[in-house]
Amino acid sequence: MFKTISSPQNPLIKQLVQLKDKSRERKKSGQFLIEGKRELSLAIKSGYKIESLLFLPDLFSESEAKAMSNNGIEIIEISKEVFQKLAHRDTTEGIIAVVKSKSHQLEGLKFESKNPLILVAEAPEKPGNIGALLRTADAANVDAVVIANPKSDLYNPNIVRSSVGCVFTTEIALASSEDVIAFLKKYNFNIFSAILQESKPYHSQDYTLPTAIVVGTEATGLTQDWRDAATQNINIPMQGVIDSMNVSVAAGILIFEAKRQRDFK
Amino acid sequence: MFKTISSPQNPLIKQLVQLKDKSRERKKSGQFLIEGKRELSLAIKSGYKIESLLFLPDLFSESEAKAMSNNGIEIIEISKEVFQKLAHRDTTEGIIAVVKSKSHQLEGLKFESKNPLILVAEAPEKPGNIGALLRTADAANVDAVVIANPKSDLYNPNIVRSSVGCVFTTEIALASSEDVIAFLKKYNFNIFSAILQESKPYHSQDYTLPTAIVVGTEATGLTQDWRDAATQNINIPMQGVIDSMNVSVAAGILIFEAKRQRDFK
Repeated sequence: MFKTISSPQNPLIKQLVQLKDKSRERKKSGQFLIEGKRELSLAIKSGYKIESLLFLPDLFSESEAKAMSNNGIEIIEISKEVFQKLAHRDTTEGIIAVVKSKSHQLEGLKFESKNPLILVAEAPEKPGNIGALLRTADAANVDAVVIANPKSDLYNPNIVRSSVGCVFTTEIALASSEDVIAFLKKYNFNIFSAILQESKPYHSQDYTLPTAIVVGTEATGLTQDWRDAATQNINIPMQGVIDSMNVSVAAGILIFEAKRQRDFK
Repeated sequence: MFKTISSPQNPLIKQLVQLKDKSRERKKSGQFLIEGKRELSLAIKSGYKIESLLFLPDLFSESEAKAMSNNGIEIIEISKEVFQKLAHRDTTEGIIAVVKSKSHQLEGLKFESKNPLILVAEAPEKPGNIGALLRTADAANVDAVVIANPKSDLYNPNIVRSSVGCVFTTEIALASSEDVIAFLKKYNFNIFSAILQESKPYHSQDYTLPTAIVVGTEATGLTQDWRDAATQNINIPMQGVIDSMNVSVAAGILIFEAKRQRDFK
């Protein structure tokens, strides 16, 4: 009843493996892969367009596939061998979708609040850290996450996975630090850059006006651009032996101090 | 000049591989392995006793080894083959030390403050999360971290690694939840359990008296014991689509709210 692909050598499957593994291919095609029902359902809810759905009949029922096919999605039944070739995780529910990427332009960001709170992360490197940042951003319901000077595309399977789907639920833009700073200034954001130099303790500042909280990498911190652009540099007082904090923990502390000041409204 | 071991089949090396890989062997022998200069130096500063030092002459100089030998430490020169067998990480500085474990009894905890702040994590599973919790605990200079119902020993190489040495710099105790609760009650701690049921927003509570902040696992949360024992259950208001936060981020938010209320003193 459905189109079937059983050989991992099939040209479409080879192309999808590229999509899974290569940022370049995702950018070129404007597509990426989503694995698992929960992630897929979050993406659909967030307005992502599913182009094809590949399913393993042992794990995903035909009736479920049929329901999706009624929505105009191309459905392909695949063999276990093909599934294993495409799957990024060990445990999934037997579905892999080819999904159209969204645009992540700064000017596309929509703010519902008059006093938006946004999190900016400059050049985050580890997919696990980006995933944790996005989970924190979702929990705090920040108005947007901006990735400045991104090191990878957003649809890296490790980011999708470690974000537990928050990559779909959060407004996200990617742009150069220069463009992000120009954008923030244009819209009158107070910029709080987490940098030690000339900084004040984070809890001494007022985050109730339009606020951007900016964090850098654990290894090198923020670039000079953000120091220059800051309304105020801020620090988390470090009182231990080792001057080290996970970037997603630091972002969580800063964002939730802002939320506390806003009384979680 | 130093004793040399070049064969990975050497009985001592086989024993040390067990020490690296098996919690059971670490417990039995009361020893564990530390890799890398920074971690080793933190452990020494924190009073850990080095029993033997194995070094790769290409990476670690003989004069450095000699200096340590003068401190009564057994020094062994090893081959690259042996080093690779023992090393947990790709990049280290050519040294591996056999170190005596410390005791991590509750009653061994020393509190310098009259109003101690401690972090309790029940049954944390992922070494990476435990490492991040310990980094946060070090940064906040909490008086102790207590791991309740521990799932592994503290000297798992992945915990040592992901804690970037904070496993050595922080006062840590391991015990059953039952014993931890009895200990906290005996010393009049206010217990704040991060549980949704019958909870109040975390920022509505006073953490300036002797305080234990208690977090559970991401998957199952805290056990009923902690709900019953709590002075107050607390929650971090979740306002996103996905009800999910990394446990080390949640602990960071709670601990630093307590630090803020204490004015970082």
